[in-house]
Amino acid sequence: MSEAVSRPTLEAVAARAGVSRATVSRVVNGGDGVREPLVERVRRAVEELGYVPNQAARSLVTKRHDAVAVVIAEPETRVFADPFFALQLRGISKELTAHDNQLVLLLTEGRDDHARVGRYLAGGHVDGALVFSLHLDDALPGLIQGAGVPTVFGGRPGWSDGNLPQTLGSAPSGQDSTAVYVDSDNRGGARDAVRHLVGLGRRRVAHIAGALDQTSAVDRLDGFRDVMADADPRLIAEGDFTPAGGERAMRELLDRCPDLDAVFAANDLMASGALRVLREHGRRVPDDVAVVGFDDMLPVAEQTDPPLTTIRQDIEEMGRLMARLLLRRLRRNPTEADQDTTTGVVLPTTLVRRASA
Amino acid sequence: MSEAVSRPTLEAVAARAGVSRATVSRVVNGGDGVREPLVERVRRAVEELGYVPNQAARSLVTKRHDAVAVVIAEPETRVFADPFFALQLRGISKELTAHDNQLVLLLTEGRDDHARVGRYLAGGHVDGALVFSLHLDDALPGLIQGAGVPTVFGGRPGWSDGNLPQTLGSAPSGQDSTAVYVDSDNRGGARDAVRHLVGLGRRRVAHIAGALDQTSAVDRLDGFRDVMADADPRLIAEGDFTPAGGERAMRELLDRCPDLDAVFAANDLMASGALRVLREHGRRVPDDVAVVGFDDMLPVAEQTDPPLTTIRQDIEEMGRLMARLLLRRLRRNPTEADQDTTTGVVLPTTLVRRASA
Repeated sequence: MSEAVSRPTLEAVAARAGVSRATVSRVVNGGDGVREPLVERVRRAVEELGYVPNQAARSLVTKRHDAVAVVIAEPETRVFADPFFALQLRGISKELTAHDNQLVLLLTEGRDDHARVGRYLAGGHVDGALVFSLHLDDALPGLIQGAGVPTVFGGRPGWSDGNLPQTLGSAPSGQDSTAVYVDSDNRGGARDAVRHLVGLGRRRVAHIAGALDQTSAVDRLDGFRDVMADADPRLIAEGDFTPAGGERAMRELLDRCPDLDAVFAANDLMASGALRVLREHGRRVPDDVAVVGFDDMLPVAEQTDPPLTTIRQDIEEMGRLMARLLLRRLRRNPTEADQDTTTGVVLPTTLVRRASA
Repeated sequence: MSEAVSRPTLEAVAARAGVSRATVSRVVNGGDGVREPLVERVRRAVEELGYVPNQAARSLVTKRHDAVAVVIAEPETRVFADPFFALQLRGISKELTAHDNQLVLLLTEGRDDHARVGRYLAGGHVDGALVFSLHLDDALPGLIQGAGVPTVFGGRPGWSDGNLPQTLGSAPSGQDSTAVYVDSDNRGGARDAVRHLVGLGRRRVAHIAGALDQTSAVDRLDGFRDVMADADPRLIAEGDFTPAGGERAMRELLDRCPDLDAVFAANDLMASGALRVLREHGRRVPDDVAVVGFDDMLPVAEQTDPPLTTIRQDIEEMGRLMARLLLRRLRRNPTEADQDTTTGVVLPTTLVRRASA
């Protein structure tokens, strides 16, 4: 940095407490093997002088920063507009704070900035990374692998078998390139949604898919097809997980298939957009068209008109679990890591019935 | 970190490009003094091997991380609930990205985590910090000063003359402890709001103040008092900048002063809460009670019923300016820093008229 600054030194603390530098160092790094009265004297001196341990030096000893990066592969505007991310971050924040780890959120304006994120991750500023909202054609997984920090993904990564593709990863031979991830049962949840609509007697069930460069969108589409194996392909429209995308897709669907009698939207935000368009077109919900969403995002799902029947996934718990898995990986030593065969944890979903279906 | 990982080395790049290590190093750090054909060869080798420069080693040379921390002195739940922070971050993100600096958002669960934030800042992970939403009794400014990173504050810090109080700061003698900040003209804006209400013929003008441990709330209250010098003290109620706080304060005010005919709320979110309570009590806005907010937070201010007359401040521009001032400080060398007498930049506000007043 360009401004010279100084601060109270370890020596100053040692002098104030009347102990050696080594003693101060031991106390600051956990106090192992130091008698309680001495610990107390050092702590008082630290407080009186406003001493902040030199984390860089401390990290050289402990090899730990007690900090975890969170990377969301979306522009910061999207991060703050979609409550999904706030919920996942809430779970992550609670878990990291409970273990006195600093949450370091790396924001970007878009994909062009991902190389810079990779450099920051490689720079020795964090112990590990939590990464979510990956897109299939994104270089981010490769950059993260190249950065060499242990990582847990939110949502199943798009490469097959959970292994980084050779073209993406620069993982040297012998390194475990298995991707650990936490996901919801997107396919099973989608099946439940569509079965519910079919159970209500609906025959022309449409699907508003999410952005199909994300596995969550692909898995929910697969779940839709599991139940509607021979569905008219015109009953499927791709959205982008935003309310505006849901509106666009709903207009397309009404245009192509005016006889549709149900819609399963791949998330609640798109369902809320679809409900607006249906109202605009004078279609009564659920009488004319039944609608089911995905997420059970509150307050959105309760405040739509009518309130939304949806598939609940515990987004906050997903975040918490991602953090927990990463911290567990960080505590382990490398030999133990090789014995770990867990690659994915998939959480169950449940149908929540409200007025829209 | 607990998992051993390796990645393509500088040596591998040098071998691939057929140049010396020193040449690779010079190219990676900006390419000064290296002939263009060699630069090209090194760049190709870097790309082919997926080489990520060792940022830690690079930082030892450049003394720069090209990363800036953002600290918001609120729990992460509040950060994601109040659009004010998203707007300020948007301005910061755009400016930092334009200068290829990584935005590092340090989230917390609350004040108990501020010591950890101070340790991270002291750890040599960022070149500087942008800090906003400070509270008067918060130890954060002292911790940041102790961390020794150049800082720009969003909003005027609460200590007098812009200098850190001795009890808070651990700034050694000779160090410039001047706090650089960016703020809006809170007092002038508040005066405009209240003058507008008085100009409409209102005589019993109430004020819903923000959290009075923040200077923005204090300055807006002062602006209110500038115009209503001998206001009935029962016409002032303290909120906390949230919609729920605005509702609570409005109930108190109606209870104490049922004859009030106008309300100036210190932000739009509190004004939206006040409007709900006034409607509940059958008071017509603006006929019975005129309401003015502060921020011109969209879409909130346009979507209230009726739409909100308010004081506009350019929140995104504040963020952008904070980032710009910090980057300018970071580019300067220490001797120049001493000549800098700018401590605060105060942006103007404007009255925006809608239906509520």
